[in-house]
Amino acid sequence: MSTDRAQLEALLDDTVLAHIGFVSDGHPVVIPTGVCRIGDQVFAHGSTGSRWMRLLATGVPVSVSIAAVDGIVVARSTFESSLHYRSAVLFGSFAAVAADEKLAALDAFVERLLPGRTSEVRPSTRKEIAATSMLALTIESWSLRISAGWPEDGDDDLAGDSWAGVVPIEHQTRAPLAAPDLRDGIAIPPSVERLRTAPPRL
Amino acid sequence: MSTDRAQLEALLDDTVLAHIGFVSDGHPVVIPTGVCRIGDQVFAHGSTGSRWMRLLATGVPVSVSIAAVDGIVVARSTFESSLHYRSAVLFGSFAAVAADEKLAALDAFVERLLPGRTSEVRPSTRKEIAATSMLALTIESWSLRISAGWPEDGDDDLAGDSWAGVVPIEHQTRAPLAAPDLRDGIAIPPSVERLRTAPPRL
Repeated sequence: MSTDRAQLEALLDDTVLAHIGFVSDGHPVVIPTGVCRIGDQVFAHGSTGSRWMRLLATGVPVSVSIAAVDGIVVARSTFESSLHYRSAVLFGSFAAVAADEKLAALDAFVERLLPGRTSEVRPSTRKEIAATSMLALTIESWSLRISAGWPEDGDDDLAGDSWAGVVPIEHQTRAPLAAPDLRDGIAIPPSVERLRTAPPRL
Repeated sequence: MSTDRAQLEALLDDTVLAHIGFVSDGHPVVIPTGVCRIGDQVFAHGSTGSRWMRLLATGVPVSVSIAAVDGIVVARSTFESSLHYRSAVLFGSFAAVAADEKLAALDAFVERLLPGRTSEVRPSTRKEIAATSMLALTIESWSLRISAGWPEDGDDDLAGDSWAGVVPIEHQTRAPLAAPDLRDGIAIPPSVERLRTAPPRL
């Protein structure tokens, strides 16, 4: 367990995928969705037609789970083998983002995965912004767990012949694939080129 | 939306991390944990002291969310940019696994990430098995969403100069790190060596 806010924010900034839990008609529902942190808020977005986003916008209690697997802990026994992970659960409720703040949040989603991309494309239109529902949750109540140590084998196993250690895991991008309808002569832009040497945080 | 059971099972087998939602005292709670599919069941495990595992073992309704991000969809506009993802939500309830089935499920967890590892280490002891709580949920009620297409830009954007395509993302392992307490002369075992050429499905 960690109470380090900087570690929480690092996990949120490394992990695009969140799983939002809420209660619907007395039953638990979990929805996976991309999130983006800006300051002390976590944003989620979707279509204005989305039923679960409309429910969340009413302020129902939510539990937002975000986790990253960073490595495989290879112990000298099955029992002690595990994963390196970081996991956070945020508690609270979402609120709809005002129309004039939506654009900044939308751009932040794209910049989060492709830094520099928003200056390579046209600005979002009013119609596009109106068609997007954007929700924000203030980071206030949360728990954070980090597993980052070495295998903890007992003395009998330490004396044996089994290897033990950690295999780190990371995300890697492969070569960009051009869309079939891409016109000839359009080069891969800098934002996409940069992914080769700076893999996206996911 | 997909109703293809084979695609569901492929996602479950590619993704170790699940987010289990349930209702506790009327509030939504989501817990991230590793899962492993065997046949038509999904297994989760933890310490017998875990409060949430004891609650799940009573058969309360759960929603289990499992998702993988497979790529970045780079469209000609911010609005059409998105992710390639596969996401499944399973509905149902967990039940405790009988003592004599626990060992097979425990071994399956390790074999899932490190094929061949269980034959490199000593068998689990009775005490270790007794200290492990193992739960199973039968895959019966589920929904599956897969986003795998190309950017869908409008005609105006297609005529412009912006690049569009997809950047695939995958997990990659880095070089294994030996534990500080590893005795001299113990080589990296085949199960760990194999990760270099066959990255784990996560």
